[in-house]
Amino acid sequence: MSERLVVIGGDAGGMAAASTARRRRDDLEIVALEKDTRTSYSACGIPYHVGGLVPELDDLVARTPQEFRDRQRIDVRLRSEAVGVDLADRSVEVRDHAHERTYRLGFDQLLIGTGARPVRPPLPGIDEPWVRGVQNLDDAAALLDVARDLRCEQVAVVGGGYIGLEMAEAFVQWGADVAVVEAGPQVMRTLDPDMAALVVEAMERHGVDVHVNTPVAAIERGRILTEDDDELPADLVVLGLGVTPNAELAGDAGLVLGHRGAIEVDHRQRTSAEGVWAAGDCATSFHLVRQERVHVALGTVANRQARVAGINIGGGYATFGGVVGTAMTRLCSTEIARTGVNEAEAQAAGFEYVVGRIESTTKSRYMPKSAPITVKVLAEVGTGRLLGGQIVGGEGSAKRIDTLATAITAGFDLDDMVNLDLGYCPPLSPVWDPVVQACRAAAG
Amino acid sequence: MSERLVVIGGDAGGMAAASTARRRRDDLEIVALEKDTRTSYSACGIPYHVGGLVPELDDLVARTPQEFRDRQRIDVRLRSEAVGVDLADRSVEVRDHAHERTYRLGFDQLLIGTGARPVRPPLPGIDEPWVRGVQNLDDAAALLDVARDLRCEQVAVVGGGYIGLEMAEAFVQWGADVAVVEAGPQVMRTLDPDMAALVVEAMERHGVDVHVNTPVAAIERGRILTEDDDELPADLVVLGLGVTPNAELAGDAGLVLGHRGAIEVDHRQRTSAEGVWAAGDCATSFHLVRQERVHVALGTVANRQARVAGINIGGGYATFGGVVGTAMTRLCSTEIARTGVNEAEAQAAGFEYVVGRIESTTKSRYMPKSAPITVKVLAEVGTGRLLGGQIVGGEGSAKRIDTLATAITAGFDLDDMVNLDLGYCPPLSPVWDPVVQACRAAAG
Repeated sequence: MSERLVVIGGDAGGMAAASTARRRRDDLEIVALEKDTRTSYSACGIPYHVGGLVPELDDLVARTPQEFRDRQRIDVRLRSEAVGVDLADRSVEVRDHAHERTYRLGFDQLLIGTGARPVRPPLPGIDEPWVRGVQNLDDAAALLDVARDLRCEQVAVVGGGYIGLEMAEAFVQWGADVAVVEAGPQVMRTLDPDMAALVVEAMERHGVDVHVNTPVAAIERGRILTEDDDELPADLVVLGLGVTPNAELAGDAGLVLGHRGAIEVDHRQRTSAEGVWAAGDCATSFHLVRQERVHVALGTVANRQARVAGINIGGGYATFGGVVGTAMTRLCSTEIARTGVNEAEAQAAGFEYVVGRIESTTKSRYMPKSAPITVKVLAEVGTGRLLGGQIVGGEGSAKRIDTLATAITAGFDLDDMVNLDLGYCPPLSPVWDPVVQACRAAAG
Repeated sequence: MSERLVVIGGDAGGMAAASTARRRRDDLEIVALEKDTRTSYSACGIPYHVGGLVPELDDLVARTPQEFRDRQRIDVRLRSEAVGVDLADRSVEVRDHAHERTYRLGFDQLLIGTGARPVRPPLPGIDEPWVRGVQNLDDAAALLDVARDLRCEQVAVVGGGYIGLEMAEAFVQWGADVAVVEAGPQVMRTLDPDMAALVVEAMERHGVDVHVNTPVAAIERGRILTEDDDELPADLVVLGLGVTPNAELAGDAGLVLGHRGAIEVDHRQRTSAEGVWAAGDCATSFHLVRQERVHVALGTVANRQARVAGINIGGGYATFGGVVGTAMTRLCSTEIARTGVNEAEAQAAGFEYVVGRIESTTKSRYMPKSAPITVKVLAEVGTGRLLGGQIVGGEGSAKRIDTLATAITAGFDLDDMVNLDLGYCPPLSPVWDPVVQACRAAAG
């Protein structure tokens, strides 16, 4: 009898691993369980469907269940939820929602790619239909149904992080009045306060109302009540409070969990149990600058981890190279990116650092459409080692973070940065790239 | 008496060094000689002035002679050409064209930043007024005067390299019929033929007529005669045949010259004579992949070399980190970039290599304005070390070369590339960045 791989979760963490394993092992039997109805979709694309830039929800699907079945002989089972894992018995208990039955499915190897779900604080009103989180495409369809039913004119986004910003943009595009309501003192907490202030300016410029230091006490029809006894009008409330890993199944099975309750994995994406792997938003990653395992829920990381798990499951050898904390987003024409550690993270890790911060332009200043860009870098005192970078600017700004992310991965110092032979032509860059200008400023 | 630094050349190589030296040494007497009338201008910006994107020629000037005088006490002397250097006497013979006199100027330190000039082959007709090269702003003004006088409807650009492409774009914007005439078998010889073919497609799409294998025999009023006895109509002929270093002055003085006759310098930008420095388009650079000294005439390199020379002249210590062969340009909406070595260069250097080449999109494929991008990388057989990369694509393509340039500088291999933690969000990138997709393809 051939060996069976069971995959739990039909998005990147699960299916990219299944595909990679299939390419290496033709003989493997592969069964993939997905509790909803779609596979391999871009959750990151949801805000652009909501905002109308992507016409069809199914445009976000990279590969359908039928394509996996036809092209890769992967037995994708939809509306099939793994409700228990028995490591001793080496089986998964599967709830088949379509046929309202439950069955046991044995495995030789198990890959857990259960992802993450939006944080939903236990507030009065949180479960009302006009309060929506967005993680998968079914959530997105439900959100849009509600938004159309309510003909919502006033939308409140609770939480000022990446998803909060993207959903704010979506409803600005939609034509609603949008407010972002953040409990803490600043939006975009992965940026330093001075860089987050630039984001707030951009939000206000794009017509988004920003409320910081505004914890929500309750949500009622048509309004949000704050802890300060204030209220904000809201036909629709969108949750952007970050995500929590779907790791209860793994925890209940006895697998070791780590940072924020995500599944602990080693360099090869192995969990604490033999033949059981995890990848994607449900698993931890090693942070190369902070030098600790962290939970990072990003599509890039999920795909990279899944590739590594798939190679290893397929009998090859691959290790996950870790993360350096790179993330980016866009709010209308404003691009935002960060990598490495910010000031608070540097301090928490015990680094002493110098700061370089510059304002420049995305192209040569004399070119039309040259947009402002602000770049901030941190470098270690003494060694000059680059520790982190943050960018806020117009079109063409954010992907410059890749130069800093690559340099941080390489352990480059400020001298290395100033010596970099980067690309230049007036319609695409100033002669000293803004990221290098920031490094020159940090070098003093 | 204070020490005197004489700088020959008023553009990046000279003036950026002079500024840097001034910041470190308040006591230095600095005299800068410029044979024309402007300082610190962007020669790279000239095509965008010709094409009408940059309204005023003086928009390309970063700092005027008067600003250098007022803010940095640099004695800038215009229309002052260095016509001889006497190393034994430690003096420069200066031709003051404004007052038609010649004088000797003593120096303690000398910085040569004489730049480069367009190659002008000795063809019949090459010196006619309707045949123009473009290196400095005075050339650009003269070109525009001639173009307006001739009301040129048909422009031929001789040479299909970076400057040729940029001047072709300029005259497309201007509204002329443009032909690019290249003697060799392909345009953009710093790219491999398969990538250059994509550039030709783009040129034709943007309305540029491309003639390869077409050596020019003579230029007459209204037409170009080719060696094949063919002819092409041309009211105006623009030379884009590359540049040759202005190093005769240095050679005549006895300084050692190197690749293509450029001035040989060490890591600190010192020439072969004590207290004599060189920077910019007149000097050589060390190529980190080819591991040899080469002549690279680019604004980025000039500015980086000038900074190093200025720090050293100012009593500090800095070394030039070399080049990895990065260059980029744009033809209308098509972006072109390269770094490291191409196939011919890899073969010449004795490298065996594998190739990865992919077609992808600049953003997630489902996003509006997602443009095609082709990326090709070369990696060393066995070690997997990244040797070079080439990109041709739509808006947002070219600056991705910086990731490859940084990685090549770091000595990264294909595994390192696949592990990179790069930025992603759907409106700015696919989840696997195209440069990483190419590295995955090369890894097989």
